[in-house]
Amino acid sequence: QRFSGGIGSKLCGTLEEAARGAERCHYFIGVLFPSFYLHSVDLLPAMDGDTKTMTFLQEVVDILLAYIVESFDRETKVIDFHYPNELLQLNNWELQDEPATLDDILISCRATLKYAIKTAHPRYFNQLSTGLDMVGLAADWLTSTANTNMFTYEVAPVFVLLEYVTLKKMREIIGWPDGRGDGIFSPGGAISNMYAMLLARFKMFPEVKEKGMSSVPRLVAFTSEHSHFSIKKGAAALGIGTESVICIKADESGKMIPADLERRILEAKQKGLVPFFVSATAGTTVYGAFDPLIAISDICKKYSIWMHVDGAWGGSLLMSRRHRWKLDGVERANSVTWNPHKMMSVPLQCSALLVREEGLMQNCNQMHACYLFQQDKQYDLSYDTGDKALQCGRHVDIFKLWLMWRAKGTVGFEAQIDKCLELSEYLYNKIKDREGYEMVFDGKPQHTNVCFWYLPPGIRYMEDKEDRKKHLHKVAPVIKARMMEYGTTMVGYQPQGDKVNFFRMVISNPAATFEDIDFLIEEIERLGQDL
Amino acid sequence: QRFSGGIGSKLCGTLEEAARGAERCHYFIGVLFPSFYLHSVDLLPAMDGDTKTMTFLQEVVDILLAYIVESFDRETKVIDFHYPNELLQLNNWELQDEPATLDDILISCRATLKYAIKTAHPRYFNQLSTGLDMVGLAADWLTSTANTNMFTYEVAPVFVLLEYVTLKKMREIIGWPDGRGDGIFSPGGAISNMYAMLLARFKMFPEVKEKGMSSVPRLVAFTSEHSHFSIKKGAAALGIGTESVICIKADESGKMIPADLERRILEAKQKGLVPFFVSATAGTTVYGAFDPLIAISDICKKYSIWMHVDGAWGGSLLMSRRHRWKLDGVERANSVTWNPHKMMSVPLQCSALLVREEGLMQNCNQMHACYLFQQDKQYDLSYDTGDKALQCGRHVDIFKLWLMWRAKGTVGFEAQIDKCLELSEYLYNKIKDREGYEMVFDGKPQHTNVCFWYLPPGIRYMEDKEDRKKHLHKVAPVIKARMMEYGTTMVGYQPQGDKVNFFRMVISNPAATFEDIDFLIEEIERLGQDL
Repeated sequence: QRFSGGIGSKLCGTLEEAARGAERCHYFIGVLFPSFYLHSVDLLPAMDGDTKTMTFLQEVVDILLAYIVESFDRETKVIDFHYPNELLQLNNWELQDEPATLDDILISCRATLKYAIKTAHPRYFNQLSTGLDMVGLAADWLTSTANTNMFTYEVAPVFVLLEYVTLKKMREIIGWPDGRGDGIFSPGGAISNMYAMLLARFKMFPEVKEKGMSSVPRLVAFTSEHSHFSIKKGAAALGIGTESVICIKADESGKMIPADLERRILEAKQKGLVPFFVSATAGTTVYGAFDPLIAISDICKKYSIWMHVDGAWGGSLLMSRRHRWKLDGVERANSVTWNPHKMMSVPLQCSALLVREEGLMQNCNQMHACYLFQQDKQYDLSYDTGDKALQCGRHVDIFKLWLMWRAKGTVGFEAQIDKCLELSEYLYNKIKDREGYEMVFDGKPQHTNVCFWYLPPGIRYMEDKEDRKKHLHKVAPVIKARMMEYGTTMVGYQPQGDKVNFFRMVISNPAATFEDIDFLIEEIERLGQDL
Repeated sequence: QRFSGGIGSKLCGTLEEAARGAERCHYFIGVLFPSFYLHSVDLLPAMDGDTKTMTFLQEVVDILLAYIVESFDRETKVIDFHYPNELLQLNNWELQDEPATLDDILISCRATLKYAIKTAHPRYFNQLSTGLDMVGLAADWLTSTANTNMFTYEVAPVFVLLEYVTLKKMREIIGWPDGRGDGIFSPGGAISNMYAMLLARFKMFPEVKEKGMSSVPRLVAFTSEHSHFSIKKGAAALGIGTESVICIKADESGKMIPADLERRILEAKQKGLVPFFVSATAGTTVYGAFDPLIAISDICKKYSIWMHVDGAWGGSLLMSRRHRWKLDGVERANSVTWNPHKMMSVPLQCSALLVREEGLMQNCNQMHACYLFQQDKQYDLSYDTGDKALQCGRHVDIFKLWLMWRAKGTVGFEAQIDKCLELSEYLYNKIKDREGYEMVFDGKPQHTNVCFWYLPPGIRYMEDKEDRKKHLHKVAPVIKARMMEYGTTMVGYQPQGDKVNFFRMVISNPAATFEDIDFLIEEIERLGQDL
């Protein structure tokens, strides 16, 4: 029996228990398990560090395997929640001058996981990225072990090739001829969207790279009022300014209204502004709405504006023969953001920007650093892709997606996605006519987002509409806080426009089942009935 | 005996051997090892997936442990190099519609590692980030397993606290009173530098966030001609333009000349331009030079310009009592980039931007996304740090640094850094008067960069200076290509200004020893003597 309790053992319930457990074990481990006496300097590259290293890493892996098994267990809490001030007291998190023992390091690992949120838990619905894929996890462990950098082929030969293969496949799925085009894996959808805006600006005014915004006319970008805040964030960073992002009206279900887009483009042109970028959203963050891409692409074509599709959330529906029609027209886009770390459950982070025009990224971003991109290397330099990035060093995000794709096949991703959408339809059908529920918008969910209010009995029959609204606004936050207190489940909520706080249920976790949806409803009612 | 050969076994020599090995094993593993018949859908969250999952992950870990041990073995190649076209043929890397077996997944893992570069290898000197720290690796495996996102406390309570603790500690080490200030871990030094430029612009002209660059005068930034290309990349992205980055002259050893900085500032002001940002470099990429920070800070103060210190490479010397004087004056900076993934050997990626002024990042970048940063949460919202980032989702980069710091203590990092500098001094002393070597600049290395030419006998006595230069330019690339062909070691080279290709040796790998330095020199001479 190893100190950690071996594979499959329960994690220690509290830190105190962990400490007691450690004490009990010391008698046995003096000889067998060296971590109590060892420090990190005893591990590789230390002389004769092999065995000690493997023992230490195996101990860590045992802790992780136990955590994984526990995470999928519905009897376990999703979170053992503590307020920041409490959590600061629960362990000694301070950094010291002197080294700790490896034993202490293992204790720190256990403590960190004890208070971590179990994102793999079948009842964790809090974000667009949920779940934990075992092959993806294995791939991420391998990536950490390979510990390299995407900038050149010479230091990441396999990963550079796999990025090439995978981006091409994704472009084929988008529908670009022969999968031609370009792309990059970037640190998240916000940065992918920023790349798109950068490319659109450069395409229209290449001189902006050298001369800056003072050399170009006043630019304006367009996106729907339901789009992700990263469009404005990007505009602020790129020196375009948030006021130059014009928010287009969305209909009741959250889709951009093309007529309003055209109207606002004309209005901007009349003011002498130059429309350069439209970001349509495929799967909005809150409603899960799909903007009408064909109509939008017609407008973009008419006015020669770069069309970007922010499919960070909804792009993965392209993998589903049943649902990909929601993105019809995506093949007309100039660029597409698509985050496999969301609906495809690839471990964080994994976000792709796909670009239709070849060579543009390189021209837009390259700076020819000669210490990195030497022109007299022995191999084909087109594989040194680092200079098309904004980053210099770039984390290897590709391997987990590639290995998962290999393991599931396209059909496996499709099945996983279809199942999540089925679950959300189940939820929708279950609550749409149920007493105490109101849907935020009518109609079946397009993505897995189901937006709804739960009205506790005390609010249900309030006559004064304003009073009712005021009370209702407080319901979701309290239920959510109680969920976290009990640790039974987690789901997001927010207000939107003039709509008071409502729940936004999203399902991207392949571990979730119909029973988990039932549980969520029961839990909301259990925690909210007295409000 | 497990299929993978168990801990410590050699990796299969070729893919063919792996396949044969697999075949030989099938007889035994039918019952014992299920991966041959299993697919990813049989793993968790599948019913009864626990054992299968743990077996599969343990198989992967065995592969990784074997790879790790092999990586530190000097008898192993640093790289089994293949040209891109060859590598594409060596395995089936294509993505399929149908799922592969878990057996195939394990084979893919082995193939990926077989052709990967062994960045932990004691003779891998190719980049500023080298080596593989065992505690850092363990921490990264844990991070992958926790699979969460830094944007809010509710989904990353421990990691958010650890980021807070660690950034504070880093600011204390910089020398800011009580460690006050702000900061963030970003996806690499280039993005950290871009953040700094963004903050400097916002500090001077807060209206730029809403109104863009058209609302501000023509801005100019300053950095030395030896600085990292990310300063220009950032300026291009932010709409400032590369021409507005003025390159200040450096002296022979690569340090910025303060008098030239002041001259260029005055010149810019006379032209009506507005100097807003000076990026001093602490540890240049090629020479490892430290700009004179005190003199530069005096100038920045005099002209009210934001002073940034790009210490991506050299910032870690702040951990060394012996070497931190090289950054004297860093405490006067407004912002500092410091990449623990370089000189501190934290696994990639781990880059921090530290900012002196509190609250500025938040004001500069926040967009108040109400689906994420709800204002009616139950806990102290100052721990929801996501809105100060350019990213929305943000990878957890903190845990590996925190756990390594815990394991080594500050003194452990110091010892590791001091040792690398000692090795580079050893190299410098060894070659400075050796026949066939010329140093690119005089004097002891300030960082671990040692820049030198190796002159093969055939070139050593050439009379015609131009001819000699022309020949010499080709030497480093050929030796490097041969190093990769043999797989014995890897070191960088590049031209700089009018200087033809020279080797840039850097040492950040804690596994390297004096013998490895000797080996490098022997290897250069062995591979280059016929040129």
